[in-house]
Amino acid sequence: MNTSEFRRRGKEMVDYVADYMEGIEGRQVYPDVEPGYLRPLIPDSAPQEPDTFEDIINDIEKIIMPGAASPACTELETVMMDWLGKMLELPKAFLTENAGEGGGVIQGSASEATLVALLAARTKAIHRLQAASPELTQAAIMEKLVAYSSDQAHSSVERAGLIGGVKLKAIPSDGNFAMRASALQEALERDRAAGLIPFFVVATLGTTTCCSFDNLLEVGPICNKEDMWLHVDAAYAGSAFICPEFRHLLNGVEFADSFNFNPHKWLLVNFDCSAMWVKKRSDLTGAFRLDPTYLKHSHQDSGLITDYRHWQIPLGRRFRSLKMWFVFRMYGVKGLQAYIRKHVQLSHEFESLVLQDPRFEICAEVTLGLVCFRLKGSNKVNEALLQRINSAKKIHLVPCHLRDKFVLRFAICSRTVESAHVQRAWEHIKELAADVLRAERE
Amino acid sequence: MNTSEFRRRGKEMVDYVADYMEGIEGRQVYPDVEPGYLRPLIPDSAPQEPDTFEDIINDIEKIIMPGAASPACTELETVMMDWLGKMLELPKAFLTENAGEGGGVIQGSASEATLVALLAARTKAIHRLQAASPELTQAAIMEKLVAYSSDQAHSSVERAGLIGGVKLKAIPSDGNFAMRASALQEALERDRAAGLIPFFVVATLGTTTCCSFDNLLEVGPICNKEDMWLHVDAAYAGSAFICPEFRHLLNGVEFADSFNFNPHKWLLVNFDCSAMWVKKRSDLTGAFRLDPTYLKHSHQDSGLITDYRHWQIPLGRRFRSLKMWFVFRMYGVKGLQAYIRKHVQLSHEFESLVLQDPRFEICAEVTLGLVCFRLKGSNKVNEALLQRINSAKKIHLVPCHLRDKFVLRFAICSRTVESAHVQRAWEHIKELAADVLRAERE
Repeated sequence: MNTSEFRRRGKEMVDYVADYMEGIEGRQVYPDVEPGYLRPLIPDSAPQEPDTFEDIINDIEKIIMPGAASPACTELETVMMDWLGKMLELPKAFLTENAGEGGGVIQGSASEATLVALLAARTKAIHRLQAASPELTQAAIMEKLVAYSSDQAHSSVERAGLIGGVKLKAIPSDGNFAMRASALQEALERDRAAGLIPFFVVATLGTTTCCSFDNLLEVGPICNKEDMWLHVDAAYAGSAFICPEFRHLLNGVEFADSFNFNPHKWLLVNFDCSAMWVKKRSDLTGAFRLDPTYLKHSHQDSGLITDYRHWQIPLGRRFRSLKMWFVFRMYGVKGLQAYIRKHVQLSHEFESLVLQDPRFEICAEVTLGLVCFRLKGSNKVNEALLQRINSAKKIHLVPCHLRDKFVLRFAICSRTVESAHVQRAWEHIKELAADVLRAERE
Repeated sequence: MNTSEFRRRGKEMVDYVADYMEGIEGRQVYPDVEPGYLRPLIPDSAPQEPDTFEDIINDIEKIIMPGAASPACTELETVMMDWLGKMLELPKAFLTENAGEGGGVIQGSASEATLVALLAARTKAIHRLQAASPELTQAAIMEKLVAYSSDQAHSSVERAGLIGGVKLKAIPSDGNFAMRASALQEALERDRAAGLIPFFVVATLGTTTCCSFDNLLEVGPICNKEDMWLHVDAAYAGSAFICPEFRHLLNGVEFADSFNFNPHKWLLVNFDCSAMWVKKRSDLTGAFRLDPTYLKHSHQDSGLITDYRHWQIPLGRRFRSLKMWFVFRMYGVKGLQAYIRKHVQLSHEFESLVLQDPRFEICAEVTLGLVCFRLKGSNKVNEALLQRINSAKKIHLVPCHLRDKFVLRFAICSRTVESAHVQRAWEHIKELAADVLRAERE
């Protein structure tokens, strides 16, 4: 949508809200619909081509308003998570349709998704161990539980371990910054020998530092064999899996118990919207379920409805699936794929500019929209370059450490980015690099 | 703001956003401001009388846009939490201004605030006990930690205990559904004798069931004396404390380590916005702090800035203080007080209607906007009445259990509610009650 259509549609929406407020006394306080009313009213997958804004807004009046905030909020979320799961070709076990045991939920952030998965895994492990040895206390078990992630995993994984009160160990990644079977296996053997109980593994697809990918096809079978919950965190990279040419990066997700990525990062859905799927809904609800009278309802035990409050940390929920519905329909799957492809193409364009300049080096494989690069030379000179770049305030870069190297990260992430921006950024970086190198020689 | 002004202002905002998008290439990617730039630009407390929308929008351009999303998002939040704290006459120890050790943060929900407080208390207790007895493991301590709340506390408190992996015990409330010193003291003595370690108490001001108030003036000193973290949850009732005539309900908050209420419940700020204050910021950051390279910044250790990511479960944050700023200025403190007072007056109006009808009884003291009532008689007849009310869909009531009684809850909570609505609701309830009683006799 260009800004001139945005002006028109935005103002129509303002009137829609005002009309609603003016007519609110004529509306029923509680909807007439029955559980499950929504799914039959909308297609079972996202459109390939864009819908018009007109069509979407008509559906709001026809499909959402009769279901009010509840149950429309819950039911649209369930269906949108199925739409998105199908866009990624997630295994059917993660979807809700066809009355499976899995399903999706919108969390606020990948940190919360990781924590929720860890807590569910913790509860499951405690129940399993207490079933076998009823004399074991929860604390005695928690003392021995140990979780794993790669040494490249996001800090939120370590934080989930802190909050959950369990050990978290970092598995040394390989030369491509990926967690591999051998290193994980080694840790498992060492820890089991020490009397610990491995119960949870976080594999990252697209690490924050350099967009590296843990080897799911190696790690997944180990988790299944050793009865450890496998959570796959693809917070950034996940959006790319809607393109067939990138879908292979998700191979092995069939071994996972839970999977998460953030459409708010790279799929044009505004913050916050973190999409999480589990293979067994009962694993989540078993960890959190409490039902006081003021939260009971007549469909409580019918199995017909989803109580998302048992799937998350907060109790209250916003109607976040609406923005997914709008975005998926306004762009269509093809439009979203084109958006991802353009970003990946621009990052390769930047990569080739870097490679053409012998003063610079690329520090990690460029797979999606992130380019890790640096001046050949000391960390000091690269820190000086970053300082100049960020002080000039024409572009903004966030650095990382890869092993002992200080590395600059060029991330393609704006909705309106074009080749011209990339070219201009590179010219700017080259100029500042020349200044830094000159200052160093002096 | 009436709907006709909403139409005009809403459309101006749409144009503001579109203009921003069209002019974005002319803007700097990173702001020029220094840490602490914002506080001197705005008043140090909320206005008593309403500001005009014009004034507010001019301040957006003048004060917020130069600070972009960061640091404006953080700095406005810190100042708004001080504004709100002063509206409640919170002890100065909870405020950020004057370089104190306390401060406020916006959480998503009271559930998250309770969990964050419990986790901070848990970390503090573990550190304290390990300092005294370095041989104690974390798990050995957690096994003995015990938290308390009243038997009327919200289910999210029990949930926080589950997530945090510690015992939570319910203290029997008194005849007014309040937690008192004697019952708490009894539990403490029993549990200490059994080798447990009391570390955390949640006192509720305005319970979900019947808006009862735990006795803070009794419970607070015990918590301080026994070195237990006191968290005060006033999720619903907290908004009322901006009125001097209700402020006494908050007396005793000076004994608390953390305090929370939800402006999204009753202070006209849209969901979500849960306001939480702590007396010592370092208690929160000590529980959660992790600093990977990609999250470091140049003001990291300056003490000048607030890193809210250490105060909460998620990492990412929305700019929720903007809606507080708009609401506080659009209404002014007097406008917000008038809004609270009107709701309380309407609930007393409903209460007196109930009292005039000998078939009904009031089940708990009416202090704020909630009236707990029922037909004198069996739970069955009240369940039948609720069923008729909610099936008719003219009003909607959520019930509760008070001890063994099934009770209906009439809550004044709409922004546009008037006396006529209350009168009409009561007529409707009386009619349905007559039907239920007739059906029972037949």
